[in-house]
Amino acid sequence: MDKENSLGIVKTLHVTFKDEFFLESGRMLSPVTIAYETYGTLNSDKSNAILVCHALTGSAHAAGYSSNDENSKGWWNEMIGPNKPIDTNKYFVVCSNILGSCYGSTGPSSIDPYTGSRYALKFPVVTIRDMVKAQKKLLDYLGIEKLFCVAGGSLGGMQALEWSITYPEIVENSIIISAAGRITPMAMAFNTVGRYAIIKDPNWQEGNYYDKTAPKDGLAIARMAGHITYLSDASFNSKFGRRLGHQDSIFDFSSSFEVENYLRYNGYKFTERFDANSYLYLLKAMDIFDLSYGYGSYSEALKRLKANSLFIDFTTDFLFPAYQMDEMCDIMKTYGNKVERVTIDSDYGHDAFLLEFDDLSAVTFSFLEKAWRKKNV
Amino acid sequence: MDKENSLGIVKTLHVTFKDEFFLESGRMLSPVTIAYETYGTLNSDKSNAILVCHALTGSAHAAGYSSNDENSKGWWNEMIGPNKPIDTNKYFVVCSNILGSCYGSTGPSSIDPYTGSRYALKFPVVTIRDMVKAQKKLLDYLGIEKLFCVAGGSLGGMQALEWSITYPEIVENSIIISAAGRITPMAMAFNTVGRYAIIKDPNWQEGNYYDKTAPKDGLAIARMAGHITYLSDASFNSKFGRRLGHQDSIFDFSSSFEVENYLRYNGYKFTERFDANSYLYLLKAMDIFDLSYGYGSYSEALKRLKANSLFIDFTTDFLFPAYQMDEMCDIMKTYGNKVERVTIDSDYGHDAFLLEFDDLSAVTFSFLEKAWRKKNV
Repeated sequence: MDKENSLGIVKTLHVTFKDEFFLESGRMLSPVTIAYETYGTLNSDKSNAILVCHALTGSAHAAGYSSNDENSKGWWNEMIGPNKPIDTNKYFVVCSNILGSCYGSTGPSSIDPYTGSRYALKFPVVTIRDMVKAQKKLLDYLGIEKLFCVAGGSLGGMQALEWSITYPEIVENSIIISAAGRITPMAMAFNTVGRYAIIKDPNWQEGNYYDKTAPKDGLAIARMAGHITYLSDASFNSKFGRRLGHQDSIFDFSSSFEVENYLRYNGYKFTERFDANSYLYLLKAMDIFDLSYGYGSYSEALKRLKANSLFIDFTTDFLFPAYQMDEMCDIMKTYGNKVERVTIDSDYGHDAFLLEFDDLSAVTFSFLEKAWRKKNV
Repeated sequence: MDKENSLGIVKTLHVTFKDEFFLESGRMLSPVTIAYETYGTLNSDKSNAILVCHALTGSAHAAGYSSNDENSKGWWNEMIGPNKPIDTNKYFVVCSNILGSCYGSTGPSSIDPYTGSRYALKFPVVTIRDMVKAQKKLLDYLGIEKLFCVAGGSLGGMQALEWSITYPEIVENSIIISAAGRITPMAMAFNTVGRYAIIKDPNWQEGNYYDKTAPKDGLAIARMAGHITYLSDASFNSKFGRRLGHQDSIFDFSSSFEVENYLRYNGYKFTERFDANSYLYLLKAMDIFDLSYGYGSYSEALKRLKANSLFIDFTTDFLFPAYQMDEMCDIMKTYGNKVERVTIDSDYGHDAFLLEFDDLSAVTFSFLEKAWRKKNV
């Protein structure tokens, strides 16, 4: 554990809301537990809160080292901490596990109080707007009325967008990374492959596998399909090339190339940490997310975004193509909204927001610093 | 059945070679049956033969309407026939089913004469070079000593390339479409997803499913993953957009978007016509294909290509990125090889060679016509 400029050991906290939580679908979920972590100190006028939103399979553990496993480093540890771009000496940072996930917040693997068993497919479909509304409850509970900033990449960026249009009066600044107001049909196609891999695994059992064998093969294959979208042609070339696995012969039916071994290893490793039903519900949330929902049009939705915003994308991200961010920025400019757009050159593809820290840190630091100074003149 | 400019009803023929056929791996396969179709007439000096090579899941039925099912149109019917770009009034066209496939040529679903049962995984790994050598046996049998042209797209283009470097003295002209001398690691990643989907389907049974239930779910999911690579972001957008399936509600767990319904429908439809083991063997052949094998380097292999060659690619094909064709053409130009390179603007992605017939026809016709005139002055 390298704790230099680190938050050191951090602890995931939980809060349970017992009142009725109405979902976008009209269905009700109760109770709702939210797992969260906070770093730094909320200042006296509660003006320094930054909400960080995690991606598809992330957790509330965004920074520092986990109290459960001190080798477990937060997923954005390079970005959050003392003297880091999201500086915990200055800001109070909150990150919560999204609704529907399996890292402590209520999801399909939680106990349904009406049956005493796990929800499984009785869990209602949740949307990104629902996730954001659950985060709002958490902020209310923490006494935070304004967000100096909301930030996230990928599904986290979609949450940051949704925050900015659902609560324009709360969000002062937003950092939206590698995201869009709706995913492309091609991205949905990858989710389709993942979905079928899981639901056609005989162990899935219509979602009722909790006391039995989990659908590990299906979930691993789903992850492999997802993994392709996190990389890029360039990163596949530089990471693996066409190298054959150690001691394999190309003429063996069972031989495999390094790229195959990597996908398999990571696919199965993922099954040790993630719940297949949660994965299905989160893919669904991603598929059905459309910023325009309830506002008539994409343009009308984006008109609501009043925050000073930074949009960041990476050149080789094909999961969220550049034209999607162009479209959003173009729309917002027509409304006179201040939008800063930065495209970072990277071979890492969609995963770049978790890897390309030199550029991402510089851009994020400078954006926050400027906004902070402006706010505190 | 629209028979205008069509070959009308055509018949798939079969020839079985009983001598020993040695594979690139050193293993021996015998007998080897090749299914093939021919269109047009071989001229008296046998100088008008064109070999057309099919893609991954294609068959010998390249043109006309099948005698088994007169609604079954050949996969390149728009390109081959009287007065079509590959003009059967002028040329003698041969197309054969590749070794390892399941459309009449010997493959894993064929009977192993040593056991009397289907080969299944006892079938040897076959390479694209093996497929080409089997085609060479067919041409010998048909009395064809020279190929006026070899042409194909995707895996067919890889065969055309392999033909041109393995038999430079036989191939006079070659048309290589949407192909490369080796696939990218990203393409291998898609194959990996497909492979795991099949081999983790409990019905696969280590390949011994022939008298039982076929691994349809696995094969369908594999096809869905493959299907993504045949399209492009642009074609996904224009074909499906984000339209929800008929009467579906976005808040239903089981609801699906049109893109999902399309992939599922085509995935399962594919299982009615293709053998899962053949699919695995052909993915393997695609993965391990490397033009340089046995020649020391990619450059040395391409140096052998003496045919007058036309390389065609399409702007949105991400399965065979343009830089791969650039690389081949650049190498061949350094050797002073005549290479014609045409990039066709299309939104159809990799599938464009089966769809973008206006441009493809014009380019192919003009290339063949020029070569034919030059040959017959």
